[in-house]
Amino acid sequence: MRHFLTTMDYTRAEIEGLLERAQRFKRRPIEPRLKDRTIALVFFNPSLRTRTSFDVGIRELGGHAVVLEPGRSAWPIEFEEGIAMDGEPEEHIQEVARVLSRYADLIGVRAFPKFQRWEDDRQDKVLQGFARYATVPVVNLETITHPCQELALALTMKERLGRLDGKKFVLTWTYHPRPLNTAVANSAVLIASKLGMDVTLLCPSEEYHLDERYLDAARKSAEGNGQKLSITYDIKSAYEGAHVVYAKSWGAIPYFGRWEQEKPIRDRHKHFIVDEQKMALTAGGLFSHCLPVRRNVKVTDAVIDSPASMVIDEAENRLHVQKAVMDVLANGW
Amino acid sequence: MRHFLTTMDYTRAEIEGLLERAQRFKRRPIEPRLKDRTIALVFFNPSLRTRTSFDVGIRELGGHAVVLEPGRSAWPIEFEEGIAMDGEPEEHIQEVARVLSRYADLIGVRAFPKFQRWEDDRQDKVLQGFARYATVPVVNLETITHPCQELALALTMKERLGRLDGKKFVLTWTYHPRPLNTAVANSAVLIASKLGMDVTLLCPSEEYHLDERYLDAARKSAEGNGQKLSITYDIKSAYEGAHVVYAKSWGAIPYFGRWEQEKPIRDRHKHFIVDEQKMALTAGGLFSHCLPVRRNVKVTDAVIDSPASMVIDEAENRLHVQKAVMDVLANGW
Amino acid sequence: MRHFLTTMDYTRAEIEGLLERAQRFKRRPIEPRLKDRTIALVFFNPSLRTRTSFDVGIRELGGHAVVLEPGRSAWPIEFEEGIAMDGEPEEHIQEVARVLSRYADLIGVRAFPKFQRWEDDRQDKVLQGFARYATVPVVNLETITHPCQELALALTMKERLGRLDGKKFVLTWTYHPRPLNTAVANSAVLIASKLGMDVTLLCPSEEYHLDERYLDAARKSAEGNGQKLSITYDIKSAYEGAHVVYAKSWGAIPYFGRWEQEKPIRDRHKHFIVDEQKMALTAGGLFSHCLPVRRNVKVTDAVIDSPASMVIDEAENRLHVQKAVMDVLANGW
Repeated sequence: MRHFLTTMDYTRAEIEGLLERAQRFKRRPIEPRLKDRTIALVFFNPSLRTRTSFDVGIRELGGHAVVLEPGRSAWPIEFEEGIAMDGEPEEHIQEVARVLSRYADLIGVRAFPKFQRWEDDRQDKVLQGFARYATVPVVNLETITHPCQELALALTMKERLGRLDGKKFVLTWTYHPRPLNTAVANSAVLIASKLGMDVTLLCPSEEYHLDERYLDAARKSAEGNGQKLSITYDIKSAYEGAHVVYAKSWGAIPYFGRWEQEKPIRDRHKHFIVDEQKMALTAGGLFSHCLPVRRNVKVTDAVIDSPASMVIDEAENRLHVQKAVMDVLANGW
Repeated sequence: MRHFLTTMDYTRAEIEGLLERAQRFKRRPIEPRLKDRTIALVFFNPSLRTRTSFDVGIRELGGHAVVLEPGRSAWPIEFEEGIAMDGEPEEHIQEVARVLSRYADLIGVRAFPKFQRWEDDRQDKVLQGFARYATVPVVNLETITHPCQELALALTMKERLGRLDGKKFVLTWTYHPRPLNTAVANSAVLIASKLGMDVTLLCPSEEYHLDERYLDAARKSAEGNGQKLSITYDIKSAYEGAHVVYAKSWGAIPYFGRWEQEKPIRDRHKHFIVDEQKMALTAGGLFSHCLPVRRNVKVTDAVIDSPASMVIDEAENRLHVQKAVMDVLANGW
Repeated sequence: MRHFLTTMDYTRAEIEGLLERAQRFKRRPIEPRLKDRTIALVFFNPSLRTRTSFDVGIRELGGHAVVLEPGRSAWPIEFEEGIAMDGEPEEHIQEVARVLSRYADLIGVRAFPKFQRWEDDRQDKVLQGFARYATVPVVNLETITHPCQELALALTMKERLGRLDGKKFVLTWTYHPRPLNTAVANSAVLIASKLGMDVTLLCPSEEYHLDERYLDAARKSAEGNGQKLSITYDIKSAYEGAHVVYAKSWGAIPYFGRWEQEKPIRDRHKHFIVDEQKMALTAGGLFSHCLPVRRNVKVTDAVIDSPASMVIDEAENRLHVQKAVMDVLANGW
């Protein structure tokens, strides 16, 4: 039995296989690959695209989605082991995962970081707890990485660019009024490097570097593909020659838990917005973002509404790639 | 592609066509008219009947409902255009509507007015935003009108009365401890006048008149059918000879945003409750209300529990008329 | 038409029949017994197992579940009759139950006690209101008893022990930081006595006795089966010779509404936790709990993780027994 927790657990060939399967589902959406199967979707955080696209995809494959929202429509859950549960949580992940595994054939889990201590968040306890105790496959619906988004981004880039090897992929940090999850940023460098792209991480300063776990993995993937991972704080050189500009905001890891101190730093970098001037530096580059996106904060209307924008296609492709993932986990390759 | 935003966009013949289709679905509920189709139901406000009846109807037609509740289980949404999104909303209606259109074949939207400025509310920005950017048909699940309720009312009246032309329809304002939406009231005069009824709007004073947009439309429909729209503050003459008494409470438009000033006015009119004495003035008149209804505040137990009460039938008919609307939007006439 | 509100309304033979049907569904999960049928699940309180297991079970029987959460995603509801509804509730149970009966073929209701006055709670007004006004069968999803849990417990004990007659069943109160519902405790003594077991209720003091309504019914069942119902405050004698130890915490009925006074009493009884020392006194006894369970507060890790623990099986069996209940209510025996 195999989970889908991060693309780091999957070879490039396996990822390419998932993308081909996704393309088949995009051409022929209705297939009874999950007939009489139940997929439990556990959301510790809100969702529009993930919930809808999984629900629709499951249905198109003949399956049945059950959406659970612990702490809202279900009990709060304990993830630490061996402790006396005399606090808020009424139930332990051991029971939750084991019982859900009796009701469902696949479990999806969304659990955002708490943003207080990155050392805690990077352990990804909720997802790892489900993966450890569930007796059915577990899918990451976004925790500290977002592998389903990775596949959607990859499929969309392939649709527009064909072969990705050697193409320049720029992940640019952008301003956002609040500190956000690094998950999609981590994921973007992981997938672009895995698929042979030349990857540039553009951010305001060293404080906005991503966790070394992901930078290392991306660096290794890039090198394995004869490419490189670059990090720069210079907007102009980053955009120059780019084939894809991927925008995302995230909070600076050293400031986890003391965001009031990061705010003035972040506020100095509103000019990282993706606009027409910057895009003009690229090699006719494409633009994308995982959504939700704040218009005219992260990207101007002119860019997101241009033909170079892939945001709606990428969102649609969530549907197709997720069907591929569920199919493989439930039925094998 | 056509939306179902208001019955004002539909001819009388089209409305009659929808009602006939609804009657067919009532006789034979299971038909695969929405097979493999997904319908997204977006609720900005809570719902019992609408949600359940759409869900059941979609299922009976072989389709799949996805229920979304933005701001609760999804992100808050921006509806203004061209602005820098540095406030609460994380996502713009442009992306929401476009992405949902990739996942779903039909989008239903419920969005109540904010009750602060009628000039804002009457623009119906949420529904209009979806209608503008969605690339699939949009259905109004109640905003500032409630066209699905209109069809349910119309079908129920036809079941009881046969031909509606020339029958006297009275919409009576009733007391309610809070100011409520005018949507069902607007809708009641629209549909009764469109179907050839003689329409009387009974309310406490000029302050409780409905928006001229709807009164005008109703007046024109009535005249086109050789009938009239009357407005009166006199309970006795309104009830006399009525074939249908439809009860609804709503807040006075001139007091939007300063409800504490309207409250003493409203409180003087508790005697607008529908009771047996008033119903005795009618021509053996029927009673209905869209639900939810406060018993013994808007209508006495004796009236709502009498054989003249159509409330449960009207609620059931929501199911059938909505199936007709979805069928026509998805498959054409 | 018959409801499933409490097992007190069902004979032992009927209960045994439901359990046999559940075993059949466990062996062969997919059967179209609810094809084209809609089941409305009304949750006034949160749920993980109940919601998921009903949803999955309905789907496996070919039916369609609609989940409603009044007061959160629907209107608050009035349950008193004949009153002027000028408070919070926007709708009366009469309309809710009648309308839902038009949309659904079966209605499930979860409504926990309010824990202020047991004299009020024991009237079970919400469930009784639905049962009175619905025109389709109503299923208790846990109110002041939990009959679905009873059937799951019974099926699990039969799987492990075969014939239950004469086996010693111990319901032990355990500590929990908050006062909890007596529903599962009431249910445990009802079903164990109905199925011929020798039942012992172990609790700290007279204040923790269950309502006489349930003790009486259990006593009569036990006597009818040639067994007895014992109540004891002595841990050692209770555990001795037990075949099943069932743990549950509940609030003391005399302290309803003044829980701050009960807290110091409850806090003195943390030693009621189920642990290996106590289990060693039993006749190789099995352990179970309805879930959610607080580990190392109600039961030690060692016991709940031992082969004697039936908690996950009991949770799974919810699925199978509930399918049996729905099948019988919808299609008859």
